[in-house]
Amino acid sequence: MKKLINSPENVVREALEGIVYAHSDLVRVHYDPNYIVRADAPVQNKVGVISGGGSGHEPMHGGFVGMGMLDAACPGAVFTSPTPDQMLEATKAVNGGKGVLHIVKNYTGDVLNFEMAADLARAEGIDVEAVVIDDDVAVKDSLYTAGRRGVGATVLAEKLTGAAAEAGRSLAEVTDICKKANGWGRSMGMALTSCAVPHVGKPTFDLPEDQMEIGIGIHGEPGRVRMDLKSADEITEMLMDPIITDLPYKAGDEVLLFVNGMGGTPLIELYVVYRKAYEIATKSGLKVVRNLVGSYITSLEMAGTSITMLKMDEDMLKLWDAPVKTAALRWGV
Amino acid sequence: MKKLINSPENVVREALEGIVYAHSDLVRVHYDPNYIVRADAPVQNKVGVISGGGSGHEPMHGGFVGMGMLDAACPGAVFTSPTPDQMLEATKAVNGGKGVLHIVKNYTGDVLNFEMAADLARAEGIDVEAVVIDDDVAVKDSLYTAGRRGVGATVLAEKLTGAAAEAGRSLAEVTDICKKANGWGRSMGMALTSCAVPHVGKPTFDLPEDQMEIGIGIHGEPGRVRMDLKSADEITEMLMDPIITDLPYKAGDEVLLFVNGMGGTPLIELYVVYRKAYEIATKSGLKVVRNLVGSYITSLEMAGTSITMLKMDEDMLKLWDAPVKTAALRWGV
Repeated sequence: MKKLINSPENVVREALEGIVYAHSDLVRVHYDPNYIVRADAPVQNKVGVISGGGSGHEPMHGGFVGMGMLDAACPGAVFTSPTPDQMLEATKAVNGGKGVLHIVKNYTGDVLNFEMAADLARAEGIDVEAVVIDDDVAVKDSLYTAGRRGVGATVLAEKLTGAAAEAGRSLAEVTDICKKANGWGRSMGMALTSCAVPHVGKPTFDLPEDQMEIGIGIHGEPGRVRMDLKSADEITEMLMDPIITDLPYKAGDEVLLFVNGMGGTPLIELYVVYRKAYEIATKSGLKVVRNLVGSYITSLEMAGTSITMLKMDEDMLKLWDAPVKTAALRWGV
Repeated sequence: MKKLINSPENVVREALEGIVYAHSDLVRVHYDPNYIVRADAPVQNKVGVISGGGSGHEPMHGGFVGMGMLDAACPGAVFTSPTPDQMLEATKAVNGGKGVLHIVKNYTGDVLNFEMAADLARAEGIDVEAVVIDDDVAVKDSLYTAGRRGVGATVLAEKLTGAAAEAGRSLAEVTDICKKANGWGRSMGMALTSCAVPHVGKPTFDLPEDQMEIGIGIHGEPGRVRMDLKSADEITEMLMDPIITDLPYKAGDEVLLFVNGMGGTPLIELYVVYRKAYEIATKSGLKVVRNLVGSYITSLEMAGTSITMLKMDEDMLKLWDAPVKTAALRWGV
């Protein structure tokens, strides 16, 4: 697998240096331990919101640091949890006296390390809450995970909690928004091709030219089933049906529909998928009131897509529409 | 090559339907002939700005339709010029009485068809100017092109002219901005892997696992040289050197640095490239005052990158920073 890198050991560090050169108006980067933090952190009297996880899912999470979204992001090595000291230092760097929320995707390493960091931060007198995101309906218990995996709902939770924090809400209120975004969000993904971890240098899994994997994880973990490639419409049905029936979403619900690219999928294909996903949602009586189409939570160069649906209420709509100024999501400012 | 589509014949139409479902607050879509137009078109007493070209380069151009950028985009079949009737209808749809600018990438079909559309529109009493973008320093005369190809500078020209039009400038003034963006912009690209046109169903070219192509076009047209894969830093040098020496840019110039993904390249790799490109520009005495990092002019699922540099002056900086509200580029609103 060919990559635009210099060496597997340096890819995260060099990408962070690129981020500094590109976005110093938005963020600062701290090295060793690595974290990306809002240029104006800590914002006094605002709840700090941080997340983190393995690298290789860009723009998540570093691309979401900025006004109205994350205060900091902790990038681990590729597909590897960040360490507790990264999370602890990031927590301290964003603590504006009103507490800090950790948004944690449900992977064993991430959960353990964020728990340790939260304990350490509390020992230093910082009020920390944590919400574990586990929105992937594809599988229970998987490589790297006990329970469901955390995927696309993470992006939406980061936007909503970031807006709530920006609006001056308390740590308990911001935490509640995050729990709601997880509780009301469901996702499922699929892959046409494998990703390849730089230091491994070969595809994570083999997928024959006529096959696809439904229910794949964002690290190339196995999904529900491998089968012959089908049409975009059939694939979209195979993702939407489990999502809709799981919550269950019901006729009359207002939803945000998020069609995500896995990193190697052209945008034109994502709109073909969005078309069918929208039609399925609408035929099910759901009202698609907001959407997001693009590659926001990726798995390196994996070709494929994931769909996330999030039930919305009045308050969440207001938080979604609130201004945001990050490298990857920006509006209203 | 596996794709998330239903059939090669329907991919453009279905993607357009997806765009309607996703972005009806920003755009309307007209079918047969196909064009994407601002929801509020025609805007009276504003110069209309339109572009178009083959599909497969998304988000260009349809993702750039909206306030502060394009008034309309004409998508052809994949990698195929739109027809004169598409351009003519789009021109009429955006004509607010102040004339219409056609931004044309330098490919033979696009140039001929836009010329024909301009003649037809003038015959109907619409004032039309056209600017041909030919910023690719890689090759002179190529498959599909006499002279240099139009690539990344197109995105920047669309932003700048759109802002100029929004500010109420005349057709002559908006045209001048476009000429300046082309005259002061230079680009070069490279590929790690081939794209595959849907109705062909196989890669456009063969590139062995240890090779890359420098100077590639956005349709997979041949570049300058094929060689063994090198490091990201070496590749970035091979792209930046011809760009810098071509204008030539000189010490003290203020520039916008645009690192673009070809469609199948993960964002983390684009930041590794941006890091080196920024360092080369800075070492050359250039001042990088604005940037863009992401996949904005793509070649389906091709893995690779292109770099565009644009010399900026005070006026262009103001136009770049002006509010824009499109599916793919948005700030200030």
